[in-house]
Amino acid sequence: MINMDNIYLIKDIPGYTPQVGRLLSMMNYARYTTLAAVKDLTVDQLDFLMDAQSNSIGALLAHFAAVEYAYQIETFEKRDLNEEEMAIWGPALDLGDSGREKIKGNDLAFYLHQLEEVRNRTYELFKSVNDDWLHMEEEFWHGKQANHYFMWFHVFEDEINHRGQIRLIRKRMGV
Amino acid sequence: MINMDNIYLIKDIPGYTPQVGRLLSMMNYARYTTLAAVKDLTVDQLDFLMDAQSNSIGALLAHFAAVEYAYQIETFEKRDLNEEEMAIWGPALDLGDSGREKIKGNDLAFYLHQLEEVRNRTYELFKSVNDDWLHMEEEFWHGKQANHYFMWFHVFEDEINHRGQIRLIRKRMGV
Repeated sequence: MINMDNIYLIKDIPGYTPQVGRLLSMMNYARYTTLAAVKDLTVDQLDFLMDAQSNSIGALLAHFAAVEYAYQIETFEKRDLNEEEMAIWGPALDLGDSGREKIKGNDLAFYLHQLEEVRNRTYELFKSVNDDWLHMEEEFWHGKQANHYFMWFHVFEDEINHRGQIRLIRKRMGV
Repeated sequence: MINMDNIYLIKDIPGYTPQVGRLLSMMNYARYTTLAAVKDLTVDQLDFLMDAQSNSIGALLAHFAAVEYAYQIETFEKRDLNEEEMAIWGPALDLGDSGREKIKGNDLAFYLHQLEEVRNRTYELFKSVNDDWLHMEEEFWHGKQANHYFMWFHVFEDEINHRGQIRLIRKRMGV
């Protein structure tokens, strides 16, 4: 789905409405840079903690998948994660102590597979909506209105935020 | 220009064409979170270096202004920065040793003023273009085509990337 010929183009993507295509273009670029930032990392490197407050790169990768899954549920099913889903995604959503304790020992393929599974579902879900859906609003943070476009923008801007941290952590490992 | 009633809405902004309004909506949200991430920092905190490889938060703020200025020149004047401009913006663009050496001792108001001056010029420049301009393509990185939309997406995605680092650095200072 990430078309390298169009990686620096924000434009229509066949099968999606214009704004959805632009949003997906940005999500694709963000993901492409995430994948570049973690290329070839070993299990030990994915588990590396810069200090006691740090999240591992592995936990941050799991966080990307968890956030995207949570927004699928939020925007397409209009509900919060249930208990079963929180058991799976909770530590990756929360990061911190819970993430440090529970997310480790996995190889890069594990995280990439998780990211891909969730993203493929996003690609499918986005086929079922259009630009009007993207602009639908509801009450969100701090009693203010947000539209679906913003919610999905937030999914990729959170990824970019933590990708900045991944790059910083990786630089400290010298790999 | 940042309208807090619309901070979680990606949509039209009066005075701009539809796609330009959406792009500016995302740039505004990114900037709003940057400002929140650096609120009340002192000169010493803005100069703090986590370790020998680290960029200070002050240098990262200067980087945001420098990158935005460089893309104004790149996309509206279709040229690279000249010698005079590089003397001003070079260390902030390059970061690293040059940034650590040359960007320090400034208070928060200094950086915020710089950011605001550059952003106000962006707001003016964007009034002069439309959605067609945003989709104009030219050769960019690695011999591939990029459109203006992507170039300006990159301006805010670079800011978000480093904002993630600012949050990490600030957490280490415990403020």
